[in-house]
Amino acid sequence: MTDPRLAEFRAEIDRVKQVVTDLHAELPANDLVTWTAGNVSERVPGVDLFVIKASGARYHTLTSDDMVVCDLDGNRVEGERKPSSDTAAHAYVYRAMPQVQGVVHTHSTYATAWSARREPIPCVLTMMADEFGGDIPVGPFALIGDDSIGRGIVETLRDSRSRAVLMANHGPFTIGSSGLDAVKAAVMLEEVARTVHTARLLGEPQRIDQADIDRLWDRYQNVYGQ
Amino acid sequence: MTDPRLAEFRAEIDRVKQVVTDLHAELPANDLVTWTAGNVSERVPGVDLFVIKASGARYHTLTSDDMVVCDLDGNRVEGERKPSSDTAAHAYVYRAMPQVQGVVHTHSTYATAWSARREPIPCVLTMMADEFGGDIPVGPFALIGDDSIGRGIVETLRDSRSRAVLMANHGPFTIGSSGLDAVKAAVMLEEVARTVHTARLLGEPQRIDQADIDRLWDRYQNVYGQ
Amino acid sequence: MTDPRLAEFRAEIDRVKQVVTDLHAELPANDLVTWTAGNVSERVPGVDLFVIKASGARYHTLTSDDMVVCDLDGNRVEGERKPSSDTAAHAYVYRAMPQVQGVVHTHSTYATAWSARREPIPCVLTMMADEFGGDIPVGPFALIGDDSIGRGIVETLRDSRSRAVLMANHGPFTIGSSGLDAVKAAVMLEEVARTVHTARLLGEPQRIDQADIDRLWDRYQNVYGQ
Amino acid sequence: MTDPRLAEFRAEIDRVKQVVTDLHAELPANDLVTWTAGNVSERVPGVDLFVIKASGARYHTLTSDDMVVCDLDGNRVEGERKPSSDTAAHAYVYRAMPQVQGVVHTHSTYATAWSARREPIPCVLTMMADEFGGDIPVGPFALIGDDSIGRGIVETLRDSRSRAVLMANHGPFTIGSSGLDAVKAAVMLEEVARTVHTARLLGEPQRIDQADIDRLWDRYQNVYGQ
Repeated sequence: MTDPRLAEFRAEIDRVKQVVTDLHAELPANDLVTWTAGNVSERVPGVDLFVIKASGARYHTLTSDDMVVCDLDGNRVEGERKPSSDTAAHAYVYRAMPQVQGVVHTHSTYATAWSARREPIPCVLTMMADEFGGDIPVGPFALIGDDSIGRGIVETLRDSRSRAVLMANHGPFTIGSSGLDAVKAAVMLEEVARTVHTARLLGEPQRIDQADIDRLWDRYQNVYGQ
Repeated sequence: MTDPRLAEFRAEIDRVKQVVTDLHAELPANDLVTWTAGNVSERVPGVDLFVIKASGARYHTLTSDDMVVCDLDGNRVEGERKPSSDTAAHAYVYRAMPQVQGVVHTHSTYATAWSARREPIPCVLTMMADEFGGDIPVGPFALIGDDSIGRGIVETLRDSRSRAVLMANHGPFTIGSSGLDAVKAAVMLEEVARTVHTARLLGEPQRIDQADIDRLWDRYQNVYGQ
Repeated sequence: MTDPRLAEFRAEIDRVKQVVTDLHAELPANDLVTWTAGNVSERVPGVDLFVIKASGARYHTLTSDDMVVCDLDGNRVEGERKPSSDTAAHAYVYRAMPQVQGVVHTHSTYATAWSARREPIPCVLTMMADEFGGDIPVGPFALIGDDSIGRGIVETLRDSRSRAVLMANHGPFTIGSSGLDAVKAAVMLEEVARTVHTARLLGEPQRIDQADIDRLWDRYQNVYGQ
Repeated sequence: MTDPRLAEFRAEIDRVKQVVTDLHAELPANDLVTWTAGNVSERVPGVDLFVIKASGARYHTLTSDDMVVCDLDGNRVEGERKPSSDTAAHAYVYRAMPQVQGVVHTHSTYATAWSARREPIPCVLTMMADEFGGDIPVGPFALIGDDSIGRGIVETLRDSRSRAVLMANHGPFTIGSSGLDAVKAAVMLEEVARTVHTARLLGEPQRIDQADIDRLWDRYQNVYGQ
């Protein structure tokens, strides 16, 4: 039986499918992914559904038809193919964090290197204070197949300014106020992961004072942007 | 005298030539090769032949005419030009491992760096457990010119879950259930070689527990994919 | 009320808008920027105005309409959108250094890594002696929001041969005799930051003798070029 | 007065101009250059002339008109613009080494990093034995402006198998049996410089036995290729 919400929210679903298709192009364009190892999802406004890419679909041939509509339990509601194997983690985040509209998962090299060491990225750059409000936290080691990954993401980010988490021995997940915002977080995360890694190879950079981090974060939330 | 199998398997040979031509484009696209230093081959189904690129051919001008058809002793059966200087190694693998349908050789930077140190890549990433089922093993130092390289590949991979081997002071070879699968293995290998290298520069990441590696490997073989 | 200088200098303003639009394309082309995190400005000849990009505008869609004309206090004089959040720093430089015609700010990875450690880049390459006349200096830690960043840039570069400064925990600013010249400085800075970083990972390179630096610098100023 | 050789060798000169123009495109395509910091030259067969690019010309707009014809003393014989500031070094090589048909100079990152430390690249990769016949040697520190750089290149390479030299605190020069061959050497040099650098960051790779290097070198000279 076809889910009645598909008809009711047809226009919004189709719009989000196109948005998510286009956002996937940002992953290779920003050097965040290898082969098919990364995915973007976005919530459909007004209904408990989200759109994510099909499992194993490659980026350069992606179209709206490779998108899968899922409910917040991660079940496929529309789409020819199986959704990403990370769908359960995305779904958990949408269930637990109603303010989150977009989720991104990659194995971007530098962020994943910090994840492999289970080491938070210290806030030594003004760009980190602006974008993440402090250190980038590490989440637990969790196996795919149940809610462990989603729960690990939510428990780590729920009380954090950061919208990025480094899942132990796995890689980063980011959340955002839209799919685009979560993609931006994934891009900026990899950049700060790479820059702080590079800095530390030749000495320990000094963490920015907490009061200065707070000022930068506050300004960026309230003054920056159009 | 023209080999009679060329006529009998014409359609399949031509199809595989096109596949192998196209797969070579993945090598520069995924930053695995410099100049002409890498090659892909694929077995022709139903007959003891495989297709590999001509020696010294550059990637951006490659066409089906740069492909050489060889028998499983590495002798050229069809093609204007000499096959890759690595043909003997590919041939040995096809002779010794009937289940292998594709072979790839590159000198990709990070995998080759591990090869230079003759050091296996430890399984510290869930992506490695998924794709390779554990550590990436090192093969012997072997000179080009006889069966040493092929034998080294086969002896290392025969009883391994890994479909990638780091040949000492040389570089990686990967095998697969198709040319595409071997190319994917080469791409994923370089990514994990780079990520684990990067992680270790600032501390030793913890190896994933063997039981968890086994669970991830089992799931990836049996659940993942369309 | 429209600023009367906009009419009087219309042709020059429009020309500089196009120049600055085009120069922004050099930032991603030379791998200096992530997302929207970098900006170029150029002074309008003959009048106390300069052109800079709008805040948050992405590079691949940039047109002349994304440019903002500002006075030397950093106030917007023309443009639909808010100017870059770094406008005050650019404006301070133009006020304090009349010979400067172009300013560039990026968070390019390697230069920012040195910035994070607050460590000058030692002059160990002939290319550095040519382009920068010696070491690349570090500027103070300064928060966005007032004149601190601009003042830090000017105090560091005023008596230096270098037209690049590494602002502590933040990233580089470069100045030049044109927007193009400042962009070239940003590109060369990142290259020497990366090369010297790489060299030092495996040992300490020897600084070039001051007399040789002076000879190279003198020659490059007086002999090089068309 | 126009040099009479320009008329006599018109066809060859124009052909070489086009070859050298096209070869310059390989430098950015293989990530060997920043801004304008690299150049390729090729000898005109049958006459003591060579073709090199104009000083300061950027790669993406290069045409045959940016090429300068020089005699073996480095004097411009044809061309609107001044030749590369490295012309004297190219000319010296052509005067001293009649078998050399092409010369390339870059500041490619990894080769220049070894140059900055004045450290030869040890032969730990079969690719190095094949292409360079052993270690990559270091040349002296030499200032631009007279024959010092050219003499340093020739003295280092004259009795070496290697067609690449790392000029101290400066960067690499490569020579070849054609412009293309010298470009290939520059590309392979950067790749081995990068791979050996990467390998050594986590341990010292073992040098290949001299007898094995000799075998690989001999085979590559005599068996490899079409």
